[in-house]
Amino acid sequence: MAKINTHFQKLSAHYLFPRIEKQVSLLKEKRPEAELIDFGIGDVSEPLAEGLVKALCASALEMGSKNTFKGYGPSQGYPFLREEIARHDYKGLGIHPDEIFISDGSKSDTANIHELFDQSSIVALPDPAYPVYVDATVMAGRSMGATSSGTYEGIHYLSCTEKNGFMPSPPASHTDLIYLCSPNNPTGVALPKELLQEWVRYAKKEKAVLLFDAAYEAYISSDAPHSIYEIEGAKDVAIEFRSYSKSSGFTGLRCAFTVIPKTLLLDSHSLHALWKRRSDTKFNGVSYIIQKAAAATYSSPCKEEIQAQITSYKKRTSLLMQGLQSLGYTIYGGKDAPYIWCKAPMGLSSWAFFDLLLQEAHIIAIPGSGFGPCGEGYVRFAAFKEEKIIEKSLKRFMNLSKKIENIQR
Amino acid sequence: MAKINTHFQKLSAHYLFPRIEKQVSLLKEKRPEAELIDFGIGDVSEPLAEGLVKALCASALEMGSKNTFKGYGPSQGYPFLREEIARHDYKGLGIHPDEIFISDGSKSDTANIHELFDQSSIVALPDPAYPVYVDATVMAGRSMGATSSGTYEGIHYLSCTEKNGFMPSPPASHTDLIYLCSPNNPTGVALPKELLQEWVRYAKKEKAVLLFDAAYEAYISSDAPHSIYEIEGAKDVAIEFRSYSKSSGFTGLRCAFTVIPKTLLLDSHSLHALWKRRSDTKFNGVSYIIQKAAAATYSSPCKEEIQAQITSYKKRTSLLMQGLQSLGYTIYGGKDAPYIWCKAPMGLSSWAFFDLLLQEAHIIAIPGSGFGPCGEGYVRFAAFKEEKIIEKSLKRFMNLSKKIENIQR
Repeated sequence: MAKINTHFQKLSAHYLFPRIEKQVSLLKEKRPEAELIDFGIGDVSEPLAEGLVKALCASALEMGSKNTFKGYGPSQGYPFLREEIARHDYKGLGIHPDEIFISDGSKSDTANIHELFDQSSIVALPDPAYPVYVDATVMAGRSMGATSSGTYEGIHYLSCTEKNGFMPSPPASHTDLIYLCSPNNPTGVALPKELLQEWVRYAKKEKAVLLFDAAYEAYISSDAPHSIYEIEGAKDVAIEFRSYSKSSGFTGLRCAFTVIPKTLLLDSHSLHALWKRRSDTKFNGVSYIIQKAAAATYSSPCKEEIQAQITSYKKRTSLLMQGLQSLGYTIYGGKDAPYIWCKAPMGLSSWAFFDLLLQEAHIIAIPGSGFGPCGEGYVRFAAFKEEKIIEKSLKRFMNLSKKIENIQR
Repeated sequence: MAKINTHFQKLSAHYLFPRIEKQVSLLKEKRPEAELIDFGIGDVSEPLAEGLVKALCASALEMGSKNTFKGYGPSQGYPFLREEIARHDYKGLGIHPDEIFISDGSKSDTANIHELFDQSSIVALPDPAYPVYVDATVMAGRSMGATSSGTYEGIHYLSCTEKNGFMPSPPASHTDLIYLCSPNNPTGVALPKELLQEWVRYAKKEKAVLLFDAAYEAYISSDAPHSIYEIEGAKDVAIEFRSYSKSSGFTGLRCAFTVIPKTLLLDSHSLHALWKRRSDTKFNGVSYIIQKAAAATYSSPCKEEIQAQITSYKKRTSLLMQGLQSLGYTIYGGKDAPYIWCKAPMGLSSWAFFDLLLQEAHIIAIPGSGFGPCGEGYVRFAAFKEEKIIEKSLKRFMNLSKKIENIQR
């Protein structure tokens, strides 16, 4: 008899977002007139830049013409895009176009990267973290079952707390694969150069691999590194994931890339060669027209349009952040990412604060505990919404504060 | 120390297509003036239908407008496309839109499907077969190493030979996962209803799962089933993979779908639920504009344009097939697929015939042995090229035949 992969059964039944959707649906049923403000799922809200629409249409027309039609492209991605990435995103960092793999999303890549490694690999990941790291680790059979706290035995959790400023240091023990996300989802905190240097040293000592997710690097305002390859020696130990989703509004278009330097060897085996083999076998590349749009992000006027969008999203984030701070909320993140990590008032749990926000202010946040036990007592706000909506939300937060005050009296 | 997935090391060093590319490069170096005719890689050659270009541009414009912009879509695919598929591709077969998963390609899906099953699963696959089935099986750790004949111990090969008309019957022994490809790549042979009924019976008896790849169903001229779900009971044992690549010219756009009926259970576990979980965790869906183009294939005038393309490809295949037959070649396939399975003359090996064609006629074919040991002594021609090119090739085949005659004298 054929049998299922029992690792899937270890996964906790409730994936974060479906549970939130359910609560929201119940609220909508109960109060159909409620005008919800969704700071939950981190999705862009502005339409595609005009230059991107033009690039999409122009390449669609190319595909409709005999002389310029493109069939199968290279599984690794077209050189025209990989060259732009090397030239712009890795200027001065010595990353070669051959070391870049174009994909349909960092979600796919940060999950599928597991396939390159031995079954026994010990995985470390931030707590709280983007749920995909955890779930992909469990599905790959690199954990035991779930504990009552929602963690999985066998995974090494890197606690991110107020105490360490949500910046995890390398552990004392050995681990093989370490997910780092900077700027972090959900805390919004970017890791400084010195700490990344520590991580590279750790990876060298332990012969471990850093899986560096830089999906939000375009939002960095501080002097935190945008790429792990700004750190000396990183090319021997780190894989980097980047995405056009949040930098260029591609969440609905789907394009990302992964960098695996050719110098990254495990016991003389090239991870670049393995990922190339995986891509050739299991992937047929990203749509030509989507790659043309991604390439357009590097030139005027598209580049400026996109930069203006990011500036606008950052302004919205600041507005929400400052508003919340002025109401007495304790806030982290927000400066280097479109995410605000907000401490729940009155010692409320994440889900209790989520419920309070939903019921009393019709505001949707993501309960921090859904990202890991250290997220307990926090919620994440994704501040992509228009300024007028953020202003409206601040009025609701103000009313909520008054209600809370009255309760407390 | 982190270690690599050693299953990757079991893979034979030479992946079929890179080896062909190398031989072709050498020929180009030696004879830069040679005008090559490529019947090798199975890729469409006609530009996108006008209706598709329109759908792409229209949806790109939607993405550029505030009110119609789409961010993240459902990982399973938009309902508008899944509903069209259920309505048209599965008319009368009782497949629900919820049972359909939109993906970026059947290559990805036929490889990634492995993740749903227990490590111990015994895999059966046709010999010859699309190389992805074999390689994905090896990478998933469901084989031992390669043998001298190029097969892998632990995989159950279903011989497809002249003797069984390239139609494999169920084996006497137990297997868990069975890849079937109908119409087959590379032989071009479609499996008749009675044989598929045998396979469904076998799968029921063995509690096995059929992985039915119907990527070429649009090319069927005979009365062979287009879907495994035309067979009674198949919804309890079969997953079906379909693609817009060859049916609608999407090789460069990337869109496909996989059907997992909710009635398909393994020891009461739903494979549909597992694949849904995998999609939610590891995939963020296909680009909205690509899904809009896929949906356009079901309506006029796009539908008729695409049908005309298929008719044209089929005509070209017939032309090549009849030409080769008139020159005395033994030919299979071609009727239900754009692939012609041609027996090498004079008992030549696949690679020897490949070399002869390349050197003497500047024609590129795929050596049949690259698809499995039973492919030895054959080559595959993909007949997507324009009629005038096919006619030109037939002159070269004729000259080659004369040369061969002279050698034989």
